[in-house]
Amino acid sequence: MLAERSGHRLVVTAVSARDRRRDRGVELSAARWYEDAAAMAADPEIDVVVELIGGADGIAARVVETALAHGKHIVTANKALMAHHGTRLAADAEERGLALSFEAAVAGGIPVIKTLREGLAGNRLRRVYGILNGTSNYILTTMREGGREFAEVLAEAQKLGYAEADPSFDIDGVDAAHKLAILASVGFGRPVDLAGVYTEGIRHVSRLDIDFAEELGFRIKLLGIARLTDSGLEQRVHPCMVPRATPIAAVEGAYNAVVAEGDFVGRVVLEGRGAGAFPTASAVAADLVDIAAGRRVFPFGIPAADLRDIPGVAIECHQSAYYIRLMVVDQPGVIADVAAALRDEQVSLESMIQRGRAPGEAVPVVLTTHLTVEAAMRRALARIETLDTVLEPPRLIRIEDF
Amino acid sequence: MLAERSGHRLVVTAVSARDRRRDRGVELSAARWYEDAAAMAADPEIDVVVELIGGADGIAARVVETALAHGKHIVTANKALMAHHGTRLAADAEERGLALSFEAAVAGGIPVIKTLREGLAGNRLRRVYGILNGTSNYILTTMREGGREFAEVLAEAQKLGYAEADPSFDIDGVDAAHKLAILASVGFGRPVDLAGVYTEGIRHVSRLDIDFAEELGFRIKLLGIARLTDSGLEQRVHPCMVPRATPIAAVEGAYNAVVAEGDFVGRVVLEGRGAGAFPTASAVAADLVDIAAGRRVFPFGIPAADLRDIPGVAIECHQSAYYIRLMVVDQPGVIADVAAALRDEQVSLESMIQRGRAPGEAVPVVLTTHLTVEAAMRRALARIETLDTVLEPPRLIRIEDF
Repeated sequence: MLAERSGHRLVVTAVSARDRRRDRGVELSAARWYEDAAAMAADPEIDVVVELIGGADGIAARVVETALAHGKHIVTANKALMAHHGTRLAADAEERGLALSFEAAVAGGIPVIKTLREGLAGNRLRRVYGILNGTSNYILTTMREGGREFAEVLAEAQKLGYAEADPSFDIDGVDAAHKLAILASVGFGRPVDLAGVYTEGIRHVSRLDIDFAEELGFRIKLLGIARLTDSGLEQRVHPCMVPRATPIAAVEGAYNAVVAEGDFVGRVVLEGRGAGAFPTASAVAADLVDIAAGRRVFPFGIPAADLRDIPGVAIECHQSAYYIRLMVVDQPGVIADVAAALRDEQVSLESMIQRGRAPGEAVPVVLTTHLTVEAAMRRALARIETLDTVLEPPRLIRIEDF
Repeated sequence: MLAERSGHRLVVTAVSARDRRRDRGVELSAARWYEDAAAMAADPEIDVVVELIGGADGIAARVVETALAHGKHIVTANKALMAHHGTRLAADAEERGLALSFEAAVAGGIPVIKTLREGLAGNRLRRVYGILNGTSNYILTTMREGGREFAEVLAEAQKLGYAEADPSFDIDGVDAAHKLAILASVGFGRPVDLAGVYTEGIRHVSRLDIDFAEELGFRIKLLGIARLTDSGLEQRVHPCMVPRATPIAAVEGAYNAVVAEGDFVGRVVLEGRGAGAFPTASAVAADLVDIAAGRRVFPFGIPAADLRDIPGVAIECHQSAYYIRLMVVDQPGVIADVAAALRDEQVSLESMIQRGRAPGEAVPVVLTTHLTVEAAMRRALARIETLDTVLEPPRLIRIEDF
């Protein structure tokens, strides 16, 4: 099938992995076995090296660098590598006339890289955003559907193998930040800038917030967002309040989705499985077919030398509406103190909810604001946090404008 | 921007249109003007001809054929042309080493052709389906949201310019059938077979059906569906009952969406604007960038000579669950007669709804069935229609299995 689609027969010539004996369900005896993957990458009989090891440095980087140095095309699923070294590797590949393909690095089997780079090539993008981490989306969905707390759902996800023993990569937004940095480069023609991605995960999202979100007509999603503003490019990964009627609000469980907003095409939404062996294989195979068919494209859509350093926008300068949840002592005057702190920072309230009464006890109070600069919001919250009647650090969730 | 993305500057060298004087908002004085588009297609200084005329035959076909004969690549938005003559034109283009690109012919700015042909090249598809006609989807959405009847909404859509004065092309499913035939070829590697598409539009969907659909947890959508079964390839365009939780159920108004189900990738959903000058321009520009960059692909994903004649499945052999609405006289025994007709054809009922009572008057009765062969369903309905107590031809809407 791949031969028919690419015009060339693809042959697995050599393989390297940690454990030679593991049954992978495919016959590999005809392929040369390498204990050292970097040595394999130098094998003169190989045209393309597929790197599925992972990690920004170490052996994965050595494999890719060795392969490029030996004139081999690269297909990789390695988002950390591309997020940290993508620009340099792309420049290297271009110089040598080689392909560097990484469809599998972002959103699994969904062809988002191809879509941004080729399918929407006629557009200037305004914003690219998406649900880029399936584990976080699964946890948020399960919390909402089951009315359960974060810690409990995370523990269960770990037991089921949906989350790693060290879940930080997923739930602290690191994985999504890698993917967003890559998407932002492809979408906006700038060098990959992982350090410029503001990153905040779902660790502090509580069931209370999820319930209030529903009440306010929102759903909470961990989004990666790259947005071109008058001051530069925002790159942010954080939980978002998403209006329930927006397509991305309906993307549940382990599914990923990416939305691109272009000046000609308007809004395009792509949704599918964002992880797993089979979706990854789908993306790798597509890259291999393109390479075998001789279809070349600049890894980031334009020559690496032409990638432009669009200035980044610091999160403090970000303008957003905000959802704020406070735990306060239910007594007269609390709201007045909170409102005064907001007023002093010119934060304009859009709504306030305090459900139920429990005089003298802790109760949640939820505020939503109109568009506010984040620095002002943070100053107001710092002052609110010092109030005796405010019992926990305030929770802030950004309300994205869709 | 396009030069940076493609590596070549694109120049509009010549233009042909019906009216030279119309202000198109772009400066065209540097381009040669042709009264005869076919003559333009033979212009020796042109590399690529963009055909945006429309129509399966006549001048559009002559332009494309002339251009190919003169060694020019083709970009076209012409679904009728591709649906009627796509296989032949693709073979012709391949033989001459020319591109025949038609992203704009299906689902406007959504890069569905590229996704099926390249992005999902590692998959065997099981099913491709979608909302392919924005006018029909707009009418169905407006009927549902406003609780209004088809004729009224259509008349309004015509006044607003969303529907043509002769709306048949849209509302009778012809436009969607063109697009489905193209998608089925790209997705399943078979010659375009427009005649093999069973086509039924939304003309007979009534407000009653929309209300019952809501009650049953469905939404009514005009879908184009190509599905590989054990007996061959189904190609169908007809109104469908779609479970409300399925992503495509949420695609409203003039938006289009295409869903591909592959053996590796699982389900991929693409959504966006399916029509209009700007989304069409987005697709055309993407095709031009690919051509300028020298990226060649077989128009239907594999060589035209290798397209396989997968047998088609007649609609009579289609297996589906069904929604049936009858208008009956509210009197004892009616349901028994209806049930007997179904039983005699081995049609198994899943549910029955008769809301309200109006003895001796006309009332709607809604039935849903388990999986049934369409021929049996039709025989049962033919017999039900002859019952004295059944006042109108029964309405049938297929319930697609998602």
